[in-house]
Amino acid sequence: MRVLLTGASGFVGRCAAAALREMGHSVVAVVNSGGRDADGEVLRVDLLSAGTAGRIAEAASADALLHLAWTTRHGAYWNDLANLSWLAATAELVAAVARRGTRRVCVVGTCFEYDWPVDGDCDEDVTPTASHTVYDAAKTACRLVLEQLARDMHLSLAWARLFHLYGPGEHPDRLVSSVCRALVAGRPARCSSGSGLRDFMDVRDAASALAHLVTGDVRGIVNVASGETVRIRDVAVTLGDLAGRPELVAVGELPDRPDEPPRITASTSRLNREVGFQPEHRLRDGLNDALTYWTKERDRHG
Amino acid sequence: MRVLLTGASGFVGRCAAAALREMGHSVVAVVNSGGRDADGEVLRVDLLSAGTAGRIAEAASADALLHLAWTTRHGAYWNDLANLSWLAATAELVAAVARRGTRRVCVVGTCFEYDWPVDGDCDEDVTPTASHTVYDAAKTACRLVLEQLARDMHLSLAWARLFHLYGPGEHPDRLVSSVCRALVAGRPARCSSGSGLRDFMDVRDAASALAHLVTGDVRGIVNVASGETVRIRDVAVTLGDLAGRPELVAVGELPDRPDEPPRITASTSRLNREVGFQPEHRLRDGLNDALTYWTKERDRHG
Repeated sequence: MRVLLTGASGFVGRCAAAALREMGHSVVAVVNSGGRDADGEVLRVDLLSAGTAGRIAEAASADALLHLAWTTRHGAYWNDLANLSWLAATAELVAAVARRGTRRVCVVGTCFEYDWPVDGDCDEDVTPTASHTVYDAAKTACRLVLEQLARDMHLSLAWARLFHLYGPGEHPDRLVSSVCRALVAGRPARCSSGSGLRDFMDVRDAASALAHLVTGDVRGIVNVASGETVRIRDVAVTLGDLAGRPELVAVGELPDRPDEPPRITASTSRLNREVGFQPEHRLRDGLNDALTYWTKERDRHG
Repeated sequence: MRVLLTGASGFVGRCAAAALREMGHSVVAVVNSGGRDADGEVLRVDLLSAGTAGRIAEAASADALLHLAWTTRHGAYWNDLANLSWLAATAELVAAVARRGTRRVCVVGTCFEYDWPVDGDCDEDVTPTASHTVYDAAKTACRLVLEQLARDMHLSLAWARLFHLYGPGEHPDRLVSSVCRALVAGRPARCSSGSGLRDFMDVRDAASALAHLVTGDVRGIVNVASGETVRIRDVAVTLGDLAGRPELVAVGELPDRPDEPPRITASTSRLNREVGFQPEHRLRDGLNDALTYWTKERDRHG
């Protein structure tokens, strides 16, 4: 299949391009004009500019679209109105590719769309949605609009809800990266109490799941998550063990955020059974790889 | 109060400006650069242009915003992607006025947001939403985003769901207008079987309801409707009676649309009790005024 991939130079996108190619698909990579490079066939454009969607759709003439591009400025994107521009641009792009014959579309949503149950996993069919930030409200809004477009334009649409990701290329200020960076620098890794439960998935698994999803035919909402539930502090503690520096992990030294959700975990039976995808990296192995990545980064940059 | 009114030269907007002034409020009218004129303090802008929202908010410095502007091209707006641009522009505008101190916002939604019950009225709290077209999906999406902005920015937000409107200035191809035009021209008014039940409200009442709503403090979703349930064909039959030409009304001469909803009617207890608004025009009287309007239009244009 020929897959049009937006956000192709991003954290998830680079791994998704690799996963698609490994499966034997060809990738048309859309990257932001100011962004990083990408391998293979590349379209450098600004997705928020008028007319871009039509030009991409025509140039790519793809069988499927995997749309990852969105505003992702660390710390800022939660309440950024740019989320609305991305919503509009996403609808434009999906309609444009549909008009050019693309019949399969997969767009990423977020676990923040759910009204997280405190005593169980988020389930695609059962768990209600709730809005917590402009980001997830815009993602939910985008899904509603795309579901309507899919009905009108006879598109096969999958909406992949990503949970917590980590791995090579993650933003340096996020949990796994920041603990890794402290450990490889021999600095204390100061954490909050980290009592919340989460699902952490290696970005390479998430990307591979998305590659399977977009080239398959499962429609509707699909959680993209590992299915492993872990307490946040245990991620830091495991990293300390793996680094051989458990004493550097200082759990409880930062204050807890008052609004920290106690549990955001995923039912993965749709991903595992319907999509037929199983992750390859157990949490401990993936965290070890992240540590190796940040050790190399340290050695590279001195 | 000083009310910023968008869509001020439109079908609902002109009446809303009049209603607000009649209540003693001052109106800053936002009209499209290419659109019709409006009375009083006017800002001529293109709301879809970057930076417009901020400029309007600064220029208006209003206590409240009544946002009516949206894509409304007759027949085309149902599946127009311009709906998404209006969603984004609406969020920009609401955020911009909130930053400039506006604390009260009323935005219009639509009865098409509801999953219409066949055996009763649409109720703001009880009736679930459903998506029928890109237009209503975008309106629902807009509401979700604005609800989040309202929480984040401590705004008082009302979401007014308009039902079926008619009256002076209505698009000539819509039901009441087109039947009136046929009758005053002495031509047959050909209609479908018109078996569906609807709520028709005089635009002057709808505008007055919106003026009360935006200058009040009721938050959340409010149906703006007459509360009178009527069969669609009886609207045409009543117009024929009022015109003294009942023989011109040809019910059943046009085919029924296969997807015509059997019932779209409104619970109006929130509008009547919480907002404290009662419509002034009974359907028969409003239809008579519409007929008078189109008689004058005929005489004016020959």
